[in-house]
Amino acid sequence: MAKQKKMVEAITSMDEDFAKWYTDVVKKAELVDYSSVKGCMILRPYSYAIWENIQKDLDARFKQTGHENVYMPMLIPESLLQKEKDHVEGFAPEVAWVTQGGQEPLTERLCIRPTSEVLFCEHYRKIINSYRDLPKLYNQWCNVMRWEKTTRPFLRSSEFLWQEGHTMHETEQQAIDETLGMLKIYADFYAQTLAIPAIIGQKTEKEKFAGAKATYTIEPMMHNGVALQGGTSHYFGDGFAKSFDITFTGRDNTLQYPYQTSWGVSTRMIGAIIMVHGDDNGLVLPPKVAPIQVAIIPIAQHKEGVLEKARKLADSLSQTFRIKLDDSDNSPGWKFSEYEMKGVPLRLEIGPKDIEQNQCVLVRRDNREKTVVCLDNLMEEIPKQLQAVHDGLYQRALENLKEKTHTAHNYEEFLEIAENRPGFIKAMWCGDVACEEKIKNETGGVKSRCIPFEQEQISDVCVCCGKPAKYQVYWGKQY
Amino acid sequence: MAKQKKMVEAITSMDEDFAKWYTDVVKKAELVDYSSVKGCMILRPYSYAIWENIQKDLDARFKQTGHENVYMPMLIPESLLQKEKDHVEGFAPEVAWVTQGGQEPLTERLCIRPTSEVLFCEHYRKIINSYRDLPKLYNQWCNVMRWEKTTRPFLRSSEFLWQEGHTMHETEQQAIDETLGMLKIYADFYAQTLAIPAIIGQKTEKEKFAGAKATYTIEPMMHNGVALQGGTSHYFGDGFAKSFDITFTGRDNTLQYPYQTSWGVSTRMIGAIIMVHGDDNGLVLPPKVAPIQVAIIPIAQHKEGVLEKARKLADSLSQTFRIKLDDSDNSPGWKFSEYEMKGVPLRLEIGPKDIEQNQCVLVRRDNREKTVVCLDNLMEEIPKQLQAVHDGLYQRALENLKEKTHTAHNYEEFLEIAENRPGFIKAMWCGDVACEEKIKNETGGVKSRCIPFEQEQISDVCVCCGKPAKYQVYWGKQY
Repeated sequence: MAKQKKMVEAITSMDEDFAKWYTDVVKKAELVDYSSVKGCMILRPYSYAIWENIQKDLDARFKQTGHENVYMPMLIPESLLQKEKDHVEGFAPEVAWVTQGGQEPLTERLCIRPTSEVLFCEHYRKIINSYRDLPKLYNQWCNVMRWEKTTRPFLRSSEFLWQEGHTMHETEQQAIDETLGMLKIYADFYAQTLAIPAIIGQKTEKEKFAGAKATYTIEPMMHNGVALQGGTSHYFGDGFAKSFDITFTGRDNTLQYPYQTSWGVSTRMIGAIIMVHGDDNGLVLPPKVAPIQVAIIPIAQHKEGVLEKARKLADSLSQTFRIKLDDSDNSPGWKFSEYEMKGVPLRLEIGPKDIEQNQCVLVRRDNREKTVVCLDNLMEEIPKQLQAVHDGLYQRALENLKEKTHTAHNYEEFLEIAENRPGFIKAMWCGDVACEEKIKNETGGVKSRCIPFEQEQISDVCVCCGKPAKYQVYWGKQY
Repeated sequence: MAKQKKMVEAITSMDEDFAKWYTDVVKKAELVDYSSVKGCMILRPYSYAIWENIQKDLDARFKQTGHENVYMPMLIPESLLQKEKDHVEGFAPEVAWVTQGGQEPLTERLCIRPTSEVLFCEHYRKIINSYRDLPKLYNQWCNVMRWEKTTRPFLRSSEFLWQEGHTMHETEQQAIDETLGMLKIYADFYAQTLAIPAIIGQKTEKEKFAGAKATYTIEPMMHNGVALQGGTSHYFGDGFAKSFDITFTGRDNTLQYPYQTSWGVSTRMIGAIIMVHGDDNGLVLPPKVAPIQVAIIPIAQHKEGVLEKARKLADSLSQTFRIKLDDSDNSPGWKFSEYEMKGVPLRLEIGPKDIEQNQCVLVRRDNREKTVVCLDNLMEEIPKQLQAVHDGLYQRALENLKEKTHTAHNYEEFLEIAENRPGFIKAMWCGDVACEEKIKNETGGVKSRCIPFEQEQISDVCVCCGKPAKYQVYWGKQY
């Protein structure tokens, strides 16, 4: 006989070592495997299924707002990448270069796309002629590559999966509306689907995207108080259009440059899910993207009728929910741990006594609350409980965000918080990059997260230099 | 005022110049654009939407049969590619090599995956330990790259999108069943979804996949009689497992090698759709993958109530079907041509007289048959008509396949058919690769398509050398 499956092993506690806890969860929940190419990871079935649920939800939001999907080539000729000066400076240092095709060296080297602005621009130049061709609202789901030195699963990897929207508009205002509209879609998605609250706002000049006029960002806070840039939306003005000579005949019959945006989110969101919702027992998945929403665990399954009843339940519930029945010969205790590690939102226990009484037990992953439910009411009770898990996760994350957001009125206070209290720091800023540099250097890496849309007037002067303040900024360390 | 949109231009006739007709359709139906990287194409919204419908249908078939999706890295270290001898010989000449990452030259060059057998093997080595871990039924949707010298949109391009299934099994029989089962899924998909009939069978030794023990294929015939390899399913035996040292503890407690398969189809299928169903007015799309199933064209739309009624219809039908209402100020005649070019299966015309009589006109794309339909019956009539288009397309393709399949009893007959009659040739074969070579050389490229599962006994001897025949083979030129 083969050996019994090993028990679910304990993982490092979050409070003890958050980084190790993260690596343990990623491994034990079977989310990724490392590959033999440095910094490139394998998405195993369980994490890829999360990604598919994310894609399905986001893609519907994009299509509802008039966007169409396309697919651009993965290779970019060096000369094309160089057409927009700021853009190439931002990306050229971190791309992978193809120099040989088949048996022959290439006459011009090609980079694997780190992002696809230049490819979209080249295509738009050909297909945009009149204001009637605008807006163009394109998106693509693809892999991109950035040659990172230090990598971590989901958070920073050389290759990752993402979506990148690229749109062209007749007027500046329309492009700005699109940029902010897509940021709103990301914020709604984070809240409604991932159960993650976040700060939204504008990046400072220093932190904006290479080639953009303005970058907007969504910044969720991880359980340990560290920020993760969760998604960005860029307004380009007509800078790329001018570099790529994209013009259209306007309503007044003059030749004009269109206004451009781009916006993207990636598999990094899975990292956010892990670090916002996870606990010492492993993953905790928001019900809307959980590959398994309800794990059915038969109790005393060797007793007559138990497995039969569990299978019937699984068959009927599978029509509506993502269900996994575990009828393996592992013990119920082992199964409880296993599906807790995998973050399954609800566990459904059913044993001989339950069957006698036409009931089962539902257990929430987020707070382990148990509810005895009549089998006739399951179709109403499961959605209610899934929603309760979603709301519970959102509420807990919101409390964490509030609790770990601090206000600094002066520089001493700022340094004290940066040193001792993990989280975001709200403080005023003069708008000078020198203050950003100084803060970063003197705090071991605290950077401006964003200038939030909802501004608070904490004081009149910059927390760093004391000159008149222009903005309230959220500051924090980041992944 | 901007200029009126130009009329749909006529395209080259199929019979006059099939290659030019193909290029015209691809361009006029706005399926692809060329990029500045040789052999890499841009999938525009209309073709990408076809691909999404293909993916959705196939992915459901894969999942129903227990397969899970994963994502592997896009780069393969040269040493990993070289682990299986036949495989590297087959692929190394046609890969793109990354030699520089960021600012530094790499110590080992990495190829962009032409296919991912070696990556799956490396992962399987780590996660397969016991017979309890088998079967592993993984699939991935991704881009791959093969450095082609001559390229043509969809049919042969350096980069293309596909799915690749890679599975591992406890026994030889289970792996063979999987190989043939997936070929069956492809054949069903071609018939039921793409409305394309095809020959299925086994590739000869000469034509099989690099590293496989056996390759099975689905071979649809294009309208002009040329074959397109439509999808393949490979049985590997335990060859890769041995090269990669993948072992598991069997039920009898001995260490064993698992048996492996792989199978794939690609965006090339869109090329098959174009060339099997298209006509001199453009694309003709099978209803199940058509991005627009019904184009609603208002007639005399300036008259009171017409646009209002058309919009109401579009809104209500959109709940169930993929609908496009064209309320632009182009003429109805222009719109008819436009949606014919785009291959929309059904056109719905509605004008003032129709509205008076509570009716509309449905026109089939495949045969232009018109039906006057009471508006109250649309929900029943549209699915019926879509099915009729599907059946009509399948039937027409089947007749083309039959009509252009010829039987050669001897070599003179074979050469005469190859010279004068486009299509497949059924003929007997001794099993010797020398005869395949001779036939190819003396016919300007006729190759064995496959040894079909349904064998016919045409004669006792090989059509080429006269020695005893082993198999009946389908022969033909290919894209």
